[in-house]
Amino acid sequence: MTESSLPTIADVDAAARVLAPVAVRTRLISSPALDAVTGARVFLKPEVLQRTGSFKFRGAYNKLASVRPEARNAGVVAFSSGNHAQGVAAAAQMLKMPATIVMPSDAPVSKIERTKGYGAEVVLYDRDKEDRDQIARGIATKRGAALVPPFDDPWVIAGQGTVGREIAEDLAALGIVPDIVSAPASGGGLMAGIGLATKAKFADVQLITSEPAGFDDHERSLRAGHREPHRAEGRTICDALMASIPGELTFAINHTLGARGVTATDDEVGRAIAFAFRELKLVVEPGGAVALAALLAGRMDAKGKTVAIVLSGGNIDADLYARLIQENP
Amino acid sequence: MTESSLPTIADVDAAARVLAPVAVRTRLISSPALDAVTGARVFLKPEVLQRTGSFKFRGAYNKLASVRPEARNAGVVAFSSGNHAQGVAAAAQMLKMPATIVMPSDAPVSKIERTKGYGAEVVLYDRDKEDRDQIARGIATKRGAALVPPFDDPWVIAGQGTVGREIAEDLAALGIVPDIVSAPASGGGLMAGIGLATKAKFADVQLITSEPAGFDDHERSLRAGHREPHRAEGRTICDALMASIPGELTFAINHTLGARGVTATDDEVGRAIAFAFRELKLVVEPGGAVALAALLAGRMDAKGKTVAIVLSGGNIDADLYARLIQENP
Repeated sequence: MTESSLPTIADVDAAARVLAPVAVRTRLISSPALDAVTGARVFLKPEVLQRTGSFKFRGAYNKLASVRPEARNAGVVAFSSGNHAQGVAAAAQMLKMPATIVMPSDAPVSKIERTKGYGAEVVLYDRDKEDRDQIARGIATKRGAALVPPFDDPWVIAGQGTVGREIAEDLAALGIVPDIVSAPASGGGLMAGIGLATKAKFADVQLITSEPAGFDDHERSLRAGHREPHRAEGRTICDALMASIPGELTFAINHTLGARGVTATDDEVGRAIAFAFRELKLVVEPGGAVALAALLAGRMDAKGKTVAIVLSGGNIDADLYARLIQENP
Repeated sequence: MTESSLPTIADVDAAARVLAPVAVRTRLISSPALDAVTGARVFLKPEVLQRTGSFKFRGAYNKLASVRPEARNAGVVAFSSGNHAQGVAAAAQMLKMPATIVMPSDAPVSKIERTKGYGAEVVLYDRDKEDRDQIARGIATKRGAALVPPFDDPWVIAGQGTVGREIAEDLAALGIVPDIVSAPASGGGLMAGIGLATKAKFADVQLITSEPAGFDDHERSLRAGHREPHRAEGRTICDALMASIPGELTFAINHTLGARGVTATDDEVGRAIAFAFRELKLVVEPGGAVALAALLAGRMDAKGKTVAIVLSGGNIDADLYARLIQENP
């Protein structure tokens, strides 16, 4: 496999073997309250319970474990608004590799602090004025370090694919065939990996990328049949889902597998987070809740169907969380 | 079995069959962050994910299902500060029995609202001036309704025992033998049920009741060898754990099985709730977090050991939750 190869289900299986001793094997959760509200049979994949609080650890560890042992001392560099940062930092710490993470200065404080907590050096940049890609590549070149892309990389996609592999395994054990699998999408690596793994077992399952309203590059691209950027200019509370355009590899996979896209507004995401607090007892961050939000807002035509929803991350500052649960009683 | 029988492991097995189609089968959760902080190998039993947001549904449903069909129309009555109320209300709704719940007027608003949401009639009383027992018995007598005790009842204990049965099943599947199993204790029904189920598989496991500091009737009683009330006069944020003395049946079981008791202060409970928010991504209410709090505070001599901790409930008002996570960064 090279860095521009499209990964396959065999790569997901290989990633599962790499991750088995280090990742948390999250189990599907069902909620009678959620089923009653949606009229669907819903299974939640709680990646909020994953090491570092998001699925990103999976792809990061799988990528870092692919670096040749003699190249590990040079370390790794990554750019990320937060969850990929933590995933890379934690994986690097476990593999004893020095890590430098380039993060936007407006990333949630908790994400910056937690990244430092895993022993990484954090370099902040101004999201509006500086080019994170350039900064990260500069550091990587200077140190001979490996750059860990957040999504458009076959090892990263295969690692995220283990989320889908576990969903398929848990559902198969229950004798259940899902109609829909939906995950939040920024660069699309999680959906692509999940697509590879779930389509291999359930040929008819509909893959759905979920995005914040306006930041709908996957929805646009999947409809158009080619990669298109979103047109949003402002911000969204979904800080983890602001990539401007789908990845080349991720889009090739998602498009080939027949994925389609839906969106949810920031208000709907806030209500989903509060619903998860009150009814599910799971802490979900905005970007991690967007698929749940789209489901609750009726965007998935899910009534009477069996749906797997990925709660992809739970790293949210206490102040924002407090506001969202109090504003949405 | 009569209402004063001591339940056995066979009754727990029978309860498991009754509950299989209706209760959520919660799965043990492990957290590398929690293991790192405690130096123990910890397995969390997340009963916050149970129907109604606490384990109480199990005992309530098992009890109500034991009422003869011809007696069901007369309905059920229960008194409870909140979680038992919701458990009884939800179970009654599923079994099509009218339910009346006597609740203290200072119970968390969310618990009162959620109880009404399950279709129950709620009767409020003043915790300092009125006798809830008398009110509930009055209603039960007038209507010929069955009274559902919160803990000191063999069907209720057997139902809660399914929590322990699942802990044992999950650990056995992993080939793991626990050193310690700890659960929050108010009347002691959860610990008694869990004790029956876990001691049957793991003869050497140490059972530990966890209580709010001051409200330490189990710790005192288990040390003394006979039932003793606690001496607390004020309040605790653990609204679910304010029973004044262990139950007769529950104490007989817990004492026989060699349980001992530990406590955690309200501040420690607040820190445990914030830890669960930040690191575990699970919403836990004060009473549900007291065993975790005692573990984190070092009360269990758990270093190097394998410990199962029950997170027994997650029904907490948004305002209190917001305050606790903001005050404990």
